[in-house]
Amino acid sequence: MFSADRLRALATDIFAALGVPRSDAAVAADVLVAADLRGVDSHGVGRLILYYNDITSGATDPITRLTTVRDLPGIAVVDANNGLGQVAGYHAMRLCVEKARQVGVASVAVRGSNHFGSASYYAMMALPHDLIGLALTNSAPVIAPPGVRKAVLGSNPIAVAVPAGRERPFVLDMATSVVPLGRLEVAMRAGERIPLGWAVDRNGRPTSDPAEAYWHGGMTPLGAMPDGGGHKGYGLALAFDILTGVLSGAHFGSQLPNWQKPHTDPTDMGHFFTAWRIDAFLPLEEFKARMDEEIRLMREAPRADGVDRIYIPGEIEFEMADRRNREGIPLQPKVVETLRRIATELHVECSVLDAD
Amino acid sequence: MFSADRLRALATDIFAALGVPRSDAAVAADVLVAADLRGVDSHGVGRLILYYNDITSGATDPITRLTTVRDLPGIAVVDANNGLGQVAGYHAMRLCVEKARQVGVASVAVRGSNHFGSASYYAMMALPHDLIGLALTNSAPVIAPPGVRKAVLGSNPIAVAVPAGRERPFVLDMATSVVPLGRLEVAMRAGERIPLGWAVDRNGRPTSDPAEAYWHGGMTPLGAMPDGGGHKGYGLALAFDILTGVLSGAHFGSQLPNWQKPHTDPTDMGHFFTAWRIDAFLPLEEFKARMDEEIRLMREAPRADGVDRIYIPGEIEFEMADRRNREGIPLQPKVVETLRRIATELHVECSVLDAD
Repeated sequence: MFSADRLRALATDIFAALGVPRSDAAVAADVLVAADLRGVDSHGVGRLILYYNDITSGATDPITRLTTVRDLPGIAVVDANNGLGQVAGYHAMRLCVEKARQVGVASVAVRGSNHFGSASYYAMMALPHDLIGLALTNSAPVIAPPGVRKAVLGSNPIAVAVPAGRERPFVLDMATSVVPLGRLEVAMRAGERIPLGWAVDRNGRPTSDPAEAYWHGGMTPLGAMPDGGGHKGYGLALAFDILTGVLSGAHFGSQLPNWQKPHTDPTDMGHFFTAWRIDAFLPLEEFKARMDEEIRLMREAPRADGVDRIYIPGEIEFEMADRRNREGIPLQPKVVETLRRIATELHVECSVLDAD
Repeated sequence: MFSADRLRALATDIFAALGVPRSDAAVAADVLVAADLRGVDSHGVGRLILYYNDITSGATDPITRLTTVRDLPGIAVVDANNGLGQVAGYHAMRLCVEKARQVGVASVAVRGSNHFGSASYYAMMALPHDLIGLALTNSAPVIAPPGVRKAVLGSNPIAVAVPAGRERPFVLDMATSVVPLGRLEVAMRAGERIPLGWAVDRNGRPTSDPAEAYWHGGMTPLGAMPDGGGHKGYGLALAFDILTGVLSGAHFGSQLPNWQKPHTDPTDMGHFFTAWRIDAFLPLEEFKARMDEEIRLMREAPRADGVDRIYIPGEIEFEMADRRNREGIPLQPKVVETLRRIATELHVECSVLDAD
């Protein structure tokens, strides 16, 4: 087990050693460790290797020069100029929060960015300010829309964070594919088949072969097949691509580099944030009491046979963060090994990795 | 086949005969006929009977007295005081459009409302103003969230409308359940089973018996089972319930009256609208060219075996509207019969129904 504080310090040191200014490095590290804390290991420090690769290959600029392209009381467009997605996302959402506090509702779009990690991080930045936060991003094309036999659309996630009163906040963070691409990688490593409905092969037919889908086909959008509402997941993924990519001035759809081959051109990913000031709609305490009631209505709904508990979106992650803040964060041996290799190469002190 | 104009006139006359002020009647009629034109027959004039029932039973006030509870430059809260959902939705979205034109982004929440029909109608009101439109509503509880054996959450739809250049606008309009409740009714009438995954029985288990699900269980959220991402559809439905119900001051979750029994208490449904001014982000012509490119990327993606065409959300409905504007709207004999019965009872001239 590794302490969050020490992992954060290590990740900060690594980003800094890669040429990222120290305050930006701290932001990027915090986004990664927050994901580890919440149990979203796929978006945690295990991903440092990707940022390492993108910075050392020159695909991502370690110095994030944010320029504000448009600036109105409730709207801004920020160009990340091929810097770090986390740094762009953090500052764009801060700007969005500030604007929403002033005018009630605000949206900030980001262009010229890179992977920003876990979308919920940015949506949750609204919570301490008693705002509702929305964070969207587009991503490398991984979804094959209904009728398509190739990945041409990102699994463009949505995150929504809403404060409650006595209850924990509502935090939704979901990709618009049935499952994330990582599930194919896991199945490939384990030599297992995947359930029909997760992905399609090079002919656009449902496949249970993860390698075929990964290399030649694509993931299915939420809803999967026509009977399950796959056109809905496709519609959401495309709507989010429009807000994050088309409207921001970033790349969109299959313009974004795919994951099968390394790239050195800028990714030009786009993000989109919105925040709403709750007390512009209702007195804050009234809203929070109503949120508690909404959560209670779901939690206390009659349970299906064999079900112990009904979860609210975000609840599992909050409980995980409590536990990992207390007990530490487990990391897979392979992740530890990779971190040690990078740290050593960059002459970063990494004795924290000996803990476990 | 029935002409849209004449159906609109008939529906207007019927609403007016029910005590709805003539201009409001025209709005409500237009929302219904627009759905018929777009091929969304479930939300067309066939639904007039429901509004007829709700007005004559006293559940809905035929006179929609809108009061603006909050009014900021970019935000408003409107109370529909138990009037018609279409009238509330129309005026709230008009207000939202006006505000977004002024300040760049605006949100309007509605409380005290009723069924507003097809969500895309309101989102599409943004299009002539070169805005992006978002429309959400909550609804009678029909969804049983994962692990729940009863419908406690609406199938809360989302509609997003985005203008393009040479291409038709992008118009997404989708419920957050796998399929709408109406699909159970259709299966029940036809004596058919439903695919496993659409709904659960009184024990929260997947069922192929539409009547069991309809009367005792619930619909599954988009994604259906855990393997398919049902927690995502649940998360979206709940997020939209929070914006439309909790934040607006309306009913939410299982507070809303269910569909199994008639009610006379106010429904107190909530809606939520947002509009973004495109040229606050990008020059309008640049945006429209980019939208055309996004649409082209999807349409021209490599097709799966046996697939003739890739559709953009809204495309099928636009083509249907072209055809029905030209050839007329087909109505099921049962719908014609019901309309004739209502019209006759209200002494409304209905010779248009003899057409066909």
